Amino acid sequence: MQTNEQLLLAIENYLAQTEFPAEPERLYAPIGYSLAGGGKRLRPMLLMLAHGIFTDRFQAALPAAAAVEVVRRGKPSVYAKWGPSVAILSGDAMMICAYRLLSEVPAELLPRILGTFNTMALEVCEGQQYDMDFESKRKVSVVEYMHMIELKTSVLLAGSITIGAMLGGASEEDCRKLRRFAIELGLAFQLQDDLLDSYGDDRLGKAIGGDILEGKQTYLMITAMSRADEATREALRTTRLDARLSDAEKIAAVKSIYDRLDVPRLTEQQISLRFERALSILDTLSADKARTQRIREYAESLIGRKN
Amino acid sequence: MQTNEQLLLAIENYLAQTEFPAEPERLYAPIGYSLAGGGKRLRPMLLMLAHGIFTDRFQAALPAAAAVEVVRRGKPSVYAKWGPSVAILSGDAMMICAYRLLSEVPAELLPRILGTFNTMALEVCEGQQYDMDFESKRKVSVVEYMHMIELKTSVLLAGSITIGAMLGGASEEDCRKLRRFAIELGLAFQLQDDLLDSYGDDRLGKAIGGDILEGKQTYLMITAMSRADEATREALRTTRLDARLSDAEKIAAVKSIYDRLDVPRLTEQQISLRFERALSILDTLSADKARTQRIREYAESLIGRKN
Repeated sequence: MQTNEQLLLAIENYLAQTEFPAEPERLYAPIGYSLAGGGKRLRPMLLMLAHGIFTDRFQAALPAAAAVEVVRRGKPSVYAKWGPSVAILSGDAMMICAYRLLSEVPAELLPRILGTFNTMALEVCEGQQYDMDFESKRKVSVVEYMHMIELKTSVLLAGSITIGAMLGGASEEDCRKLRRFAIELGLAFQLQDDLLDSYGDDRLGKAIGGDILEGKQTYLMITAMSRADEATREALRTTRLDARLSDAEKIAAVKSIYDRLDVPRLTEQQISLRFERALSILDTLSADKARTQRIREYAESLIGRKN
Repeated sequence: MQTNEQLLLAIENYLAQTEFPAEPERLYAPIGYSLAGGGKRLRPMLLMLAHGIFTDRFQAALPAAAAVEVVRRGKPSVYAKWGPSVAILSGDAMMICAYRLLSEVPAELLPRILGTFNTMALEVCEGQQYDMDFESKRKVSVVEYMHMIELKTSVLLAGSITIGAMLGGASEEDCRKLRRFAIELGLAFQLQDDLLDSYGDDRLGKAIGGDILEGKQTYLMITAMSRADEATREALRTTRLDARLSDAEKIAAVKSIYDRLDVPRLTEQQISLRFERALSILDTLSADKARTQRIREYAESLIGRKN
């Protein structure tokens, strides 16, 4: 069986050798730019690992792995670098390229895989639209927020993993279970992302507090708002706009409210809950436990905890 | 056999009953807006008519007819009405909806039809990119221009017609011939469009001269530039920018140059050449001549001439 490093290398090589025409340059250059190497290749890796539960013939999954990497990749950076008309047209072209890669799956699986891919891609658009809508919304409930990140993040992992499983020859029941696994994993992953943005991660050394300064709706902010009294809610809304405070002071002030309201612990709890649910689903697959070990370990490394 | 009016009605009904979710509203409203009734439904009609050469079971072609109508429909108007971020996201969603409609074709035809659709959609993006590139290009040759409109206009007709023929059970050879038919028809159609923009059409009573005022690269302008001496070329470049002239005077001045250089007649000649080529290809199909009569008449009505 391939190691994760070998799988990642196979994905990089496959993406690098995917040929895009040279002309017109303004249409195709942004696609190459968006797909350039680096990054975790999270969705392709999950697709390959789900595929690997059921078969060792990993090459068969590479075109679909490339397709899930292409869809929705790097749109904001293309917009920033080339402007809206290039982003629109290259975005369309990128989407079509994803479908072209997808069309290389075995013909007998194409209708099912195409259907899964379409649903996934459309739900991701819905999630992004909700995310944009939330920016101008005063009050977002925890339920609304979880629904949004399920669409924006989980669904893409779920589609990738389901397609990998289908290509590997998984039964419909195993595909359904892996879909649930991916949904829960995606929620844990997104909440972890929210937590790390405010509380950091020693392993990454990343600057923290960006979400707080931008006034983003995150699981932390929404949980805090739902637990705060009116005065504290007002402080949560206005602190980042207080011109007398430095950025560091704003971040510290909001985090001290989070701490007082027990938000980090509640978030950790929710992450663990989702993550444990995900792992417990893996145990119910018809596949040998040894075969699910790889995707389990990968999930653990994503969420940064051993269960 | 269905009349054209019945086919058009079937297309309208199919598009109207295609369900899009209600939420999120900012994602799906632009799609409904873009697809709202009216218009010639040129590409779906050509798909249905190509299909009709080979079979009378017209309903089987409706999902694909809807798919070719959805792709690339109304992007500029969505951009103008809702702005770039909605245009990008709704544009993606619209493209995915096109693929969802397309996935309803019979499974055994899906790989071929998906491949045809992908190539078509990507080439349309290329054509639109070249069209944008030409705006800032000082000199465009007739060959470059014909290549651009083949990509921007012909390819979409060719894909629609080929998919219709495939669904109707046409042989590969007939599909190839119909593709050539559509390419030539599309070129005639686009050149006709260029000509009408400057010389009008009594049947439409449309305002004329828009391309001239915008300084667009059209077949007329490019042909004139290629035939003019340096002083006339300069006049062609600068007349529309002359603040002393009214719009009507600018249009009249450019058209008098066109007339002097014999541009309308040369354009008519090119249209006839392309259109005759298209029709002569129809005669070589393996199908009965009576069965090609409908698409022939439709093509004649598009180009506004009987051969």
